[in-house]
Amino acid sequence: MEQSFLAYLRGRCRSLPQVTVGIGDDAAVMEPPAANLIACTDQIIDGVDFVSAEHSYADAGYKAMAINLSDIAAMGAVPTSALVTLALPKQNATRIAGEVYEGILQAAAEFQVAIAGGDLSTYDGPLAVNITLLGNVPAGNPWLRSGAQENDAVLVTGFVGGSIRGRHLRPTPRVEFANRLREQVDVHAAIDISDGLSLDLDRLCASSGVGVELNITAIPIHDDAIILAEQTGRTPFEHAWSDGEDFELILTMSQSDADKVLAMDHECELTQIGTILGRTGLWKRQETKLVRLSPQGYIH
Amino acid sequence: MEQSFLAYLRGRCRSLPQVTVGIGDDAAVMEPPAANLIACTDQIIDGVDFVSAEHSYADAGYKAMAINLSDIAAMGAVPTSALVTLALPKQNATRIAGEVYEGILQAAAEFQVAIAGGDLSTYDGPLAVNITLLGNVPAGNPWLRSGAQENDAVLVTGFVGGSIRGRHLRPTPRVEFANRLREQVDVHAAIDISDGLSLDLDRLCASSGVGVELNITAIPIHDDAIILAEQTGRTPFEHAWSDGEDFELILTMSQSDADKVLAMDHECELTQIGTILGRTGLWKRQETKLVRLSPQGYIH
Repeated sequence: MEQSFLAYLRGRCRSLPQVTVGIGDDAAVMEPPAANLIACTDQIIDGVDFVSAEHSYADAGYKAMAINLSDIAAMGAVPTSALVTLALPKQNATRIAGEVYEGILQAAAEFQVAIAGGDLSTYDGPLAVNITLLGNVPAGNPWLRSGAQENDAVLVTGFVGGSIRGRHLRPTPRVEFANRLREQVDVHAAIDISDGLSLDLDRLCASSGVGVELNITAIPIHDDAIILAEQTGRTPFEHAWSDGEDFELILTMSQSDADKVLAMDHECELTQIGTILGRTGLWKRQETKLVRLSPQGYIH
Repeated sequence: MEQSFLAYLRGRCRSLPQVTVGIGDDAAVMEPPAANLIACTDQIIDGVDFVSAEHSYADAGYKAMAINLSDIAAMGAVPTSALVTLALPKQNATRIAGEVYEGILQAAAEFQVAIAGGDLSTYDGPLAVNITLLGNVPAGNPWLRSGAQENDAVLVTGFVGGSIRGRHLRPTPRVEFANRLREQVDVHAAIDISDGLSLDLDRLCASSGVGVELNITAIPIHDDAIILAEQTGRTPFEHAWSDGEDFELILTMSQSDADKVLAMDHECELTQIGTILGRTGLWKRQETKLVRLSPQGYIH
């Protein structure tokens, strides 16, 4: 199927200036970024990250792009091009590939990403979609997990928890928000929430050698977490604290920069949930004492 | 397993100057190439591209790197960094990942490739190794399939046919050869042999809108093709003509450039097998007439 499908795909893929030679040669040829080259890779597997009996293959394709776009956003970077690898069940391989690409191309169009190349195989196994996304940081430095500083404000985009109700398939990667933010303030550290707010925040803190005092009542709980809590018997807060696949950003910056951006309008909610401490760990203040909180989330 | 395995991996991966931030952040940060950025991706699946009952997982890892290195070589490029995605059977996932990485890291060390990042999942399926390899062309243009010109000499590296006897697992990607060649002559077009000499040569010709007159007696037949022919009842030539996974390069250049490099010593055999024609197709001369040959190989 590969040759004919690739011919179809070449017709479907928009040409964008960042890719000089795309699908069809031994490798893709691309314009190099001016400064840093950013790259990430993430896969979506049927039965692990989505369920083909319940979800569409287009959703799987969209999700595979979106989770990588979210990683690029967490670096404060602009995505440019993608390499797409599909491992396809032998049965209906061409139809499934076509449907997966509907979702991939939709996300690619929304975020001006060129499909630079890829690979296709059929095998005895479930659909697996692996995408490598390339990007760059137009000016300044990429946002690392390790840059948080004592007294930084800790902010989170959007609302968290309960994404398993369906939001995890079509998240909104915060690419545009991140790129506007980079022009407005000096972000010290960032991570996207893939495994749970508290777990990913803990990772950011560990990378930076710091901790955080959280204002837990400020955590922006998603309606999905409230609805899900009615079914699970857990609290909405517990879902917001530990559910994964929100694909929102956790950001740290000076309190004055935070005050500046919190006073502005953005395309998504932006909430301060805490302040970076010199001591490690996640903490909340109970009366005059700091009480340690334990991070929870999806451990791979 | 992901976090502890990644910690182990960070310790095993050499730091190389081309990767500023490697495994452990949301994405990798790399030095951008001066000119063209080259990228390719290829996957290896148990039961399709290797058989874990017969071959080692380290071989699978090595092969996944080598097939991508071969694509980079076919662009006349230098590989710089790799992103590695593993889909692992749930049973023995950590052991298998460790063994796969033995092969990956061996190839990475041999070719000075940095492991910039990756992804790991466990699932109900066979091992799949997907590697995206990045590289660049230090000077001049990348070699495309589409650059062959009438009267070009057509050259092939090494010996072809019968790689299924075992050579396909540990091929020698022609990276170093390609990079020395780029400094010596002006290569017009190149492709690596993944699906069969005749099929990949036909693809190069089709991309360039040309054909080729072959000197079929000159085709360098590998000993493996001779041994395999004794078992299959086909001729050694048929194996050389159509077997895949040789991972040798087919190159075109002016006859004077070809004469120059054919007179030099190289790390691998280099043989002229034909001349580019203005008319499309693969041909051989029989007395005074051209007779058309049909390309054969592995159609995905």
